[in-house]
Amino acid sequence: MDLDAHLDVARQAAVEAGEILVRYLAEGVEIRNKEASGGVSYDLVSDADLHAEQRIAEVLRKATPGYELLGEETLDGAADAEHLWVIDPLDGTNNFAHRLPHFAVSIAYYRHGKPAVGVVYNPARNDWYTAIAGGGAIHNGNRVQVSAAQQLSEVLIGCGFYYDRGAMMRSTLAAVNDLFETQIHGIRRFGTASLDLCQVGAGNFGGFFEYQLSPWDFAAGRLFVEEAGGRVTTATGDPLPMAKTSLVASNGHLHEALVEITQRHASY
Amino acid sequence: MDLDAHLDVARQAAVEAGEILVRYLAEGVEIRNKEASGGVSYDLVSDADLHAEQRIAEVLRKATPGYELLGEETLDGAADAEHLWVIDPLDGTNNFAHRLPHFAVSIAYYRHGKPAVGVVYNPARNDWYTAIAGGGAIHNGNRVQVSAAQQLSEVLIGCGFYYDRGAMMRSTLAAVNDLFETQIHGIRRFGTASLDLCQVGAGNFGGFFEYQLSPWDFAAGRLFVEEAGGRVTTATGDPLPMAKTSLVASNGHLHEALVEITQRHASY
Repeated sequence: MDLDAHLDVARQAAVEAGEILVRYLAEGVEIRNKEASGGVSYDLVSDADLHAEQRIAEVLRKATPGYELLGEETLDGAADAEHLWVIDPLDGTNNFAHRLPHFAVSIAYYRHGKPAVGVVYNPARNDWYTAIAGGGAIHNGNRVQVSAAQQLSEVLIGCGFYYDRGAMMRSTLAAVNDLFETQIHGIRRFGTASLDLCQVGAGNFGGFFEYQLSPWDFAAGRLFVEEAGGRVTTATGDPLPMAKTSLVASNGHLHEALVEITQRHASY
Repeated sequence: MDLDAHLDVARQAAVEAGEILVRYLAEGVEIRNKEASGGVSYDLVSDADLHAEQRIAEVLRKATPGYELLGEETLDGAADAEHLWVIDPLDGTNNFAHRLPHFAVSIAYYRHGKPAVGVVYNPARNDWYTAIAGGGAIHNGNRVQVSAAQQLSEVLIGCGFYYDRGAMMRSTLAAVNDLFETQIHGIRRFGTASLDLCQVGAGNFGGFFEYQLSPWDFAAGRLFVEEAGGRVTTATGDPLPMAKTSLVASNGHLHEALVEITQRHASY
């Protein structure tokens, strides 16, 4: 099966998961209107997440029997398997819970530990980011590239917070503070790492960093950045492991400047 | 002319401004594809801003001759005029410049210094937030209300940064730090104050704060929050002036807790 065929399978799984998420979101809105609660209940979010993951697993297992599956909820494939799907059925749980239409399904295919195909799909906005190793990064049918900016002072930087509310959160705020002192155009915190990565690939952000992410958060998005001409490493500039890790993504030109700041505060 | 008629005029002006912005955005993308620059050029953004403001002014002057107009670029109506339109043709300039489809046209009608009608429109997503004093808050045709959350630990909080990169920026980061310690669900920084306010009104955010905003940034959005059942004050809990000011918006229940944090750091 070639990589294009893998992309088709991943897209089909993402479509079906997206339908599930959008249906839960609509039901959540109904519940909220009835009960005037603060948002979608977290039970509902958890049900949506699990239901979408099960559907993705069904589609993938049927199309590619024998492949391993890795995901947050119930899937524990090996990161270095010959054939591995890496799945986040609902990235941006908090946005989903508060009915912000900025969340995504993320599905990647890794071969021998290397990214081969990536799909990030926001079903609330029908927004598609796809990439195939060696084949470029595609946003809604158009080939895209990272920003050509040469200076931090020309770009927006996305960031994420790991919610330990301790040292890592303070590291993130310290890095944001240092970024402001480089006169960046602005910091953005949209709340969905897979989409943040794709916005680096599409040139909206000059870079993105977060001090803790899991493989399912970045597996597809990191390929999108790389295929768009960008670079992805840890916060200390090391190669990205397929494990829980810090992450810095950029258009390449800004990578050293960004890592200089993120590694300064990486002693959490 | 009744308030419904004022709303119709504001909507018409917003539609025409939105068409201009979307056209400039598409041209910016073409320029980028040709020149591989970092984003839309700031000259183009400035042209789009000015062109949209001129079109809004034309529509409003024709429909309501004699009304004063207040806006960032060229309009200097008096904040306490009997009849005043308050206009931001392009809120979220930085997002627009980096082709992030999260920006808005904001138009409000104030009578004797009091908000009477507000329209916030994101033309890139055809997203409409409208409010009439005493008539509730409407998002894309549906009546909406603020979140019912009683605790900061149940909500997302939006924030904005004034880019002085000095004391006010450090105040913002200090307030974000304190918010994390209340165990909020998360901080969001989307980059468009008028839409942030509307997301408080629509219940996506439990609250929002920014240490410096101008009347055209908040004139429409603050009415949306109030008509959705929420509350808007300065960062020290005082009534909002129609002048450059700090701002805290919330669902009401969370207002004191939020102001306690924002005023702690308001000594910039």
